[in-house]
Amino acid sequence: MTPTESEVRARLDALADAIRNLELEAILAFYSPDIRAFDCHTLMQMQGLVEYRAHWESCLPHMRGPMTFDILQLDVEAGGDMAFCHYLVNCGCTGTDGEYHGGVLRATACFRKVDGEWVVVHDHISAPFDPETGMTMFGADAEATEPAGAA
Amino acid sequence: MTPTESEVRARLDALADAIRNLELEAILAFYSPDIRAFDCHTLMQMQGLVEYRAHWESCLPHMRGPMTFDILQLDVEAGGDMAFCHYLVNCGCTGTDGEYHGGVLRATACFRKVDGEWVVVHDHISAPFDPETGMTMFGADAEATEPAGAA
Repeated sequence: MTPTESEVRARLDALADAIRNLELEAILAFYSPDIRAFDCHTLMQMQGLVEYRAHWESCLPHMRGPMTFDILQLDVEAGGDMAFCHYLVNCGCTGTDGEYHGGVLRATACFRKVDGEWVVVHDHISAPFDPETGMTMFGADAEATEPAGAA
Repeated sequence: MTPTESEVRARLDALADAIRNLELEAILAFYSPDIRAFDCHTLMQMQGLVEYRAHWESCLPHMRGPMTFDILQLDVEAGGDMAFCHYLVNCGCTGTDGEYHGGVLRATACFRKVDGEWVVVHDHISAPFDPETGMTMFGADAEATEPAGAA
């Protein structure tokens, strides 16, 4: 990993800390005002920080922290003022039902360097679906997927 | 769009043509040997062209071409030897049952310039899921999502 790639990795690790702690203002500070986000559930896309904040605000009442957000198999590529990362993430939290909900997802994060700081301009997090049933396949671990109903 | 971004857009458009025609060798020519792909269905990830080719080969017998692959709301960011794109894509084809299967998905593609040519080193295509049901939400158009069973 180059020194620039290590910088980006450190930013991603700091963002993951904010996510684990469900600290919304700290999370939002990593994102560009023109963020375009594709989250794993509910919405096709969010464009801009106002929509991104609103999505988090709609999720937080259903979540009991801290959140699990373990970055696995991270690849970082950075050069000049741009970077992108792709990784798997073991992600979940306890819901208001007292049960843990989560699994392994796939994630991509794209960064732009603005005034010396790496900010996220795009992120994409998802689970694949089973084409036979239309059900989401949450990964039980980084190697395998299983149908959502099988856990 | 800068001249470099237009170059990347032209590569993405050419890749989309190969996908529409389901020309596997032409599709694979756009990808780096170290491609890491997160496709919308079945697999958590593919690493390397051998796995990527095998995934396409497992899909093609279920598909009757040409495929629909219309790029919507494309954003491209490029600098130096790196680029990333994010877009929605109206994507589908007729299956062996004679029915059309498809909808609007979200896509991210990351490029590296190698020997003067832009190659895809990472792509990620997905649909969000409904957290209440675990069902995949295929977009009916670029603005809306609907449950998979509602079409």
